Amino acid sequence: MRITFLGTGAAGGVPLYGCRCEACALAKENPALRRAPCSALIEAGDTRILIDGGLMDLHTRFAPGKLDAILLTHFHPDHVQGLFHLRWGKGDRIPVFIPPDPDGCADLFRHPGILDFLPQTALSAFAIGPLRITPVPLIHSKPTFGYVFECASGSSFAYLTDTRGLPQDTESFLKTVKPGGLAIDCSFPPSDQPRGHNDWPRALKCIEAVSPGRAWLIHLSHELDQWRLTTRPELPATVTVANDGERVDL
Amino acid sequence: MRITFLGTGAAGGVPLYGCRCEACALAKENPALRRAPCSALIEAGDTRILIDGGLMDLHTRFAPGKLDAILLTHFHPDHVQGLFHLRWGKGDRIPVFIPPDPDGCADLFRHPGILDFLPQTALSAFAIGPLRITPVPLIHSKPTFGYVFECASGSSFAYLTDTRGLPQDTESFLKTVKPGGLAIDCSFPPSDQPRGHNDWPRALKCIEAVSPGRAWLIHLSHELDQWRLTTRPELPATVTVANDGERVDL
Repeated sequence: MRITFLGTGAAGGVPLYGCRCEACALAKENPALRRAPCSALIEAGDTRILIDGGLMDLHTRFAPGKLDAILLTHFHPDHVQGLFHLRWGKGDRIPVFIPPDPDGCADLFRHPGILDFLPQTALSAFAIGPLRITPVPLIHSKPTFGYVFECASGSSFAYLTDTRGLPQDTESFLKTVKPGGLAIDCSFPPSDQPRGHNDWPRALKCIEAVSPGRAWLIHLSHELDQWRLTTRPELPATVTVANDGERVDL
Repeated sequence: MRITFLGTGAAGGVPLYGCRCEACALAKENPALRRAPCSALIEAGDTRILIDGGLMDLHTRFAPGKLDAILLTHFHPDHVQGLFHLRWGKGDRIPVFIPPDPDGCADLFRHPGILDFLPQTALSAFAIGPLRITPVPLIHSKPTFGYVFECASGSSFAYLTDTRGLPQDTESFLKTVKPGGLAIDCSFPPSDQPRGHNDWPRALKCIEAVSPGRAWLIHLSHELDQWRLTTRPELPATVTVANDGERVDL
């Protein structure tokens, strides 16, 4: 199973429009430091699955037929905004696995176009190609799923954004799976008001509880990058901050 | 007054994702034939106004401080989708003049960020720099305004999308102004079901009624481009099909 972190940014990304902090200034100069809307590509054999549709160039990035499915974590605009344009296309419908959110976002449900929205049930697995995929509930301001991928080859990976902590049933399931890799929301530096997202200590606490083989911090805000620049916090050996374009083979 | 047609496409644009018609095939090969989401830049002296926010690269296309205002015709995603990302920025708030639509689009009103939404009243003019701007009601599936720009220098321009025909009060106002230039929705080839948009004959009928100095057809679908390829319809001498990037000085 190959994971590509297509985007690792919180809403607004890095650099944040109009921001003059050091982290944003560095990202303006160096494309390698930029963070697009949080999104990942999962590949296993010939199967290609996109997690979240917040990248605004989906219609040029993925040629028709190149995606077997899209999984949406939730319907906030930074996770679906690239679908508004893509949906008007022609050709085979694209299965879009979603949490049970009756509102969706804007008029996506009313005018789905080529998108075939498929509401899922928490902790009820489905299969795409060689992957068994289990949606797990997260704690956010809209109905939100993480997704746990288990490959016939034995590798496993959990993608968990947006969330503040983990519900007990999700944590229990993850402990059972013991994923080889785990990517988790770490939007903010240490904060008393994480506003629906993990701050740095809470993300590390979730990772410690699940104890995956390796872990990546995703959905990072410019505030987190700026805090890292000034405090240079240490991480456990198995945990890294993900970067846009980073590829991982599990 | 300078008008730049930044995008001249209907929802989905040209080429349409996954479409194999000749018009889409040609646009794939030739960037000059592509049509991005319908949008225009109005410049008069140092004043720069963006009409509609459907372009998905607004945050990189316009540096902070480079826009004096945004005017929204209405809140369908193809006219606002670039604002979802831009709004999270920092710095001066951007005035966004809008029709009185209590729903807006998705969570834009709930989380406006740096956008300062300013609902307007039909036919009640406001000023930005040297421009007197009058919002005029259009006929669409959401509350929709066209905008009529009158410059202190004497030039005038009307931008009218999305619409199917023109309300009587809008037509009367336009006849009074006698705009030097007029851009109008022409989404479809001749059709019995224009679905909230002008087809070719209806757009020409609106132009004939107002009798502007020059006119441009905008908000074109790939069906219209394909129809033009096969039928090569003639246009009155003062009317042209607008293209992305085209600049007009009035």
